[in-house]
Amino acid sequence: MIEIDPERLREAFDRYAAIGATENGGLHRLALSAADGEVRDAFVADLEALGLDVRVDGLGNVFGRREGRDSGADPVLIGSHLDSQPYGGRYDGQLGVLAALETLRALEDASVETDRPIEIVDWTNEEGARFKPALMGSEAYAGLADAEDALAVEDGDGTTVEEALESIGYRGDAPVGPDGDLHAYLELHVEQGPVLENEGVDIGVVEGIKGMSWLSATIRGEADHAGPSPMHTRADALVAAADVVGAVRRLSARLADDAVTTVGELTVEPGSINVIPSAATFTVDLRSYDDAAVARGVERVEAELEAACDREGTTYELSELWRIPHTEFSPRVCDVAAAAAAERGRTVRRLRGGAGHDASSLATLTEAGLVFVPSVGGKTHNEREFTEWTDVVAGVGVFAETVRRLADEASESA
Amino acid sequence: MIEIDPERLREAFDRYAAIGATENGGLHRLALSAADGEVRDAFVADLEALGLDVRVDGLGNVFGRREGRDSGADPVLIGSHLDSQPYGGRYDGQLGVLAALETLRALEDASVETDRPIEIVDWTNEEGARFKPALMGSEAYAGLADAEDALAVEDGDGTTVEEALESIGYRGDAPVGPDGDLHAYLELHVEQGPVLENEGVDIGVVEGIKGMSWLSATIRGEADHAGPSPMHTRADALVAAADVVGAVRRLSARLADDAVTTVGELTVEPGSINVIPSAATFTVDLRSYDDAAVARGVERVEAELEAACDREGTTYELSELWRIPHTEFSPRVCDVAAAAAAERGRTVRRLRGGAGHDASSLATLTEAGLVFVPSVGGKTHNEREFTEWTDVVAGVGVFAETVRRLADEASESA
Repeated sequence: MIEIDPERLREAFDRYAAIGATENGGLHRLALSAADGEVRDAFVADLEALGLDVRVDGLGNVFGRREGRDSGADPVLIGSHLDSQPYGGRYDGQLGVLAALETLRALEDASVETDRPIEIVDWTNEEGARFKPALMGSEAYAGLADAEDALAVEDGDGTTVEEALESIGYRGDAPVGPDGDLHAYLELHVEQGPVLENEGVDIGVVEGIKGMSWLSATIRGEADHAGPSPMHTRADALVAAADVVGAVRRLSARLADDAVTTVGELTVEPGSINVIPSAATFTVDLRSYDDAAVARGVERVEAELEAACDREGTTYELSELWRIPHTEFSPRVCDVAAAAAAERGRTVRRLRGGAGHDASSLATLTEAGLVFVPSVGGKTHNEREFTEWTDVVAGVGVFAETVRRLADEASESA
Repeated sequence: MIEIDPERLREAFDRYAAIGATENGGLHRLALSAADGEVRDAFVADLEALGLDVRVDGLGNVFGRREGRDSGADPVLIGSHLDSQPYGGRYDGQLGVLAALETLRALEDASVETDRPIEIVDWTNEEGARFKPALMGSEAYAGLADAEDALAVEDGDGTTVEEALESIGYRGDAPVGPDGDLHAYLELHVEQGPVLENEGVDIGVVEGIKGMSWLSATIRGEADHAGPSPMHTRADALVAAADVVGAVRRLSARLADDAVTTVGELTVEPGSINVIPSAATFTVDLRSYDDAAVARGVERVEAELEAACDREGTTYELSELWRIPHTEFSPRVCDVAAAAAAERGRTVRRLRGGAGHDASSLATLTEAGLVFVPSVGGKTHNEREFTEWTDVVAGVGVFAETVRRLADEASESA
């Protein structure tokens, strides 16, 4: 059984979390920002200190390879992402990368040689906060999105992904995509929901992830003076948008038991206290394990836009930024993780996740798995995101043992 | 009867409108911006070319004085403002300043010496778009607001009024406020509403202006991930704000026949597609001629905030940025304007205005009046704001004749 070093893990966690730290104990480390560049440098230095072969691909995904007894065997890939939400938490993504790093360090400590090579990865732009969509690096790696298209994506200031990669020195030379088959992919992540904490369980073995759609809508009315314009002559874009925000909130209850619906962004033009809004632009995030419920949700949002604009005399444009079907993870990898947890005396709950993860992209390429540790209060994408350190240590221990087992599996068909 | 020169007026209009012009034929000349500095320079040059004595006060209000036969008599003050809304129109404010300039030029052409001095003014920050509240220069001049407080007001980037004044060279030495009594104040403005056009009338003589309140509300919820957070555990600040936006829209119908209610600004934090909004900040603009209806409106907005936050598990802060009672203009000045219009063969409608004007501030100091010219479609605070040139010429002619008559009135008590 692999033994991890909790103090070494803590040192790395604190050191990484200091890069882009916020006043309130959170993390503001948007994808490809200067802070993201700095934490990548720390990561690369840690990989090189382990003697790993480091490579960076054309989208900035950073890999390190630890050889196995059979260097020709399909490798096990492990990792997560180091970018954060705006004023987000310290655990989301970063903990998965550090769990993978600690796993390799623990194997090195114990001079364990696995049968298969193990590769560690930091995926570019998992969050999709600065550059849309999310899962940018892992989707391109898995062939689900085009790397050239991703390089051309602009942030709110018109900076492209390519320019941002170059500015932090992470536009790598390696081709985007796997160099042959993978044996498995494993990721550790905080749950970001309340299930494990509510049930007092140590480890979540994730069987699947909800499918989702991201929409962008713009409603156009007409700007006019808020004083002399009679109410009945107005075409107020914000009034129509507010109707849709309320409808999206209620929509979850119509679609499916597990459906969640959110408007996260909304901007108003021209945005002056005494001017009737001429435009309102907002996003919609729809999720369910039932892909048909997501599809119905998209139709309902359009119907609500139509109704609100008809009432208010406004017009709309609706576009879908992203659609991803639900993910089913590898039952075999789930079983290996559950067995590793049992051996270490940890309680396990199998569950479905609500958040997208790079593991979803990898599930289209290989046998993929995802392990959760509890999130206090289920809070995430928030500076108050928190996981008890004992839960972190338990989770990283189970993760490391699962990786070792996967890397010693005999054949691809095992 | 004073004869204005329509070609000279057109030349000045086109020249001023080119400063801060937008691609779509509008004007983007925010208070104390570089463009505002440039148009002020043009205005000062035009005043100096007329041989006027120019002074700038500590808030950047620009005055020019044309002496009368009796230089000790209380002067007639005329003017408006040269700042614009963001991507606003070319007539709002600017036309009133140019009507006053053309009036002085026409008097000079005809070598008319009036009994009283006439002063022309460009008021600082009428719009309140960049720096709040509106009517900043005229309210401080009239003693309704404190000039020192106004200098400390910050725009969205943290630049103060004082810094902005200094950066364009218009932090003047003259004290803010009148140097003795005024005989009268007169302003020309576009109607910004549909009444004159709908009724086919040339000139609006404004008897009064609605009172108003400007509110700012912030709703605070809790940021969380839009995927794994169950709907029932959320405290979504935008959902609560959207409820209030809808309630504000309906509120007008409860308050008074003439009440209008608008949410013009709304911003969301953190503003990420997959993050439940932790904060939503928005403004409310309430207006009615009935000051008690405005007061009831403020109470209703607070009640709606309370109800929405109770439903959604959020909290709120509400502050009133500005309250201004309804204005009643001088019946005597109204009569002079109506008589001048009749003499020039123009049709007149007496009406009440919905928009705040610098004339409201001046009405607390002196006998004040306001003359409207029609607005096509009633559109304003919009790049498509438009007034037919024949209506402009008619309005400026009536304005000039009214000014001449006021400046020849024998005594303060006339």
